[in-house]
Amino acid sequence: MAKPKLQIALDSQSLSEALVTVREVGDVVDILEVGTVLCLQDGMEPVRAIRALYPEKTILADTKCADAGKTVAKNCKDAGADWMTVICCATIQTMQAANKEIDELQVELYGDWTFDQAKDWKNIGIEQVVYHQSRDALLSGQSWGDKDLDKIKKLVEMGFKVSVTGGLDVDTLELFKGINVNAFIAGRSIAEAENPKQAAIDFKNKINEIF
Amino acid sequence: MAKPKLQIALDSQSLSEALVTVREVGDVVDILEVGTVLCLQDGMEPVRAIRALYPEKTILADTKCADAGKTVAKNCKDAGADWMTVICCATIQTMQAANKEIDELQVELYGDWTFDQAKDWKNIGIEQVVYHQSRDALLSGQSWGDKDLDKIKKLVEMGFKVSVTGGLDVDTLELFKGINVNAFIAGRSIAEAENPKQAAIDFKNKINEIF
Repeated sequence: MAKPKLQIALDSQSLSEALVTVREVGDVVDILEVGTVLCLQDGMEPVRAIRALYPEKTILADTKCADAGKTVAKNCKDAGADWMTVICCATIQTMQAANKEIDELQVELYGDWTFDQAKDWKNIGIEQVVYHQSRDALLSGQSWGDKDLDKIKKLVEMGFKVSVTGGLDVDTLELFKGINVNAFIAGRSIAEAENPKQAAIDFKNKINEIF
Repeated sequence: MAKPKLQIALDSQSLSEALVTVREVGDVVDILEVGTVLCLQDGMEPVRAIRALYPEKTILADTKCADAGKTVAKNCKDAGADWMTVICCATIQTMQAANKEIDELQVELYGDWTFDQAKDWKNIGIEQVVYHQSRDALLSGQSWGDKDLDKIKKLVEMGFKVSVTGGLDVDTLELFKGINVNAFIAGRSIAEAENPKQAAIDFKNKINEIF
């Protein structure tokens, strides 16, 4: 089993604010994610800026693309992103169009997706999915459970590289022991830690300990 | 029956490119939509710029928000948008959080949404939905049919203000005769017309003729 990667979700309100986190954790994490809020606030400039700072790191543009897959994916690629996200309720045509333009496409799993749909995504060559506990769902008191873990295992068995996100901290990582997770995505638990660099190192150490 | 409004979808790659269209059609249309591609390219600056140019027009930020509803909606409102979109597979918590921050929220209907979900949206006070023929679906040969029109009628009966979009031109407007459409959304058929201003006027005239 490959060791899960660590992805920082840059959910800042502006590029400059994101760079405060990037400065601290850029060398520690494996994947730098330009979050949806940041994309919607500052467009593709954060992707270009972070690519300029980290020519060799994996950069994900979390566009949650729902339409115009070709244009959005081409724009992300042109800006320097390796990966981007599409939302699970996008049509298969949108996903297919996006998948041709970007190195790897991630389907972000929200709401009522089905494993039948997941088969369709696999069939058109999509390699990655993101299993997501919605921030708003977490705020309203829901959390990780066996139901989530079983779905993640099934997606891994189908051959997907599965990233997991939503309210993760060093302690919750234990829940995923034995599951072939592709990447753990952390946002606030790193960015808003007293020492973000140490928080990222703690995540990496915990991953190395468990997997 | 109120006359349907005309909405221009600014699907440009940059603010400056969008302004070429805005300059021509801004005075003619009822609603100026900052399209998803434009939001993802240039962030909220196009919303601020178009609000500066048109202090009184309705501005829609087509964010297709899927999570972090409160933050995204607040950012849209702060930038000057009256309305914004959420994607239909967002959780009800996300929609509810967004709905509190923006004047009116539109649920954008993609993929496998259900009328049971639509009831939930109505129950939390969402007023608008967008019935969308995906651009990628249109490119692959699908078009408007009775199946679409029946769904639109049912949504209107449920009490939603329904906007329709996807491959609309002056001729296809006839299909919606007798249906209480809130707004017709046109993009390329206006922006890429030889004379965009005249194309927008033709749309308005046709709406006045049919409804």
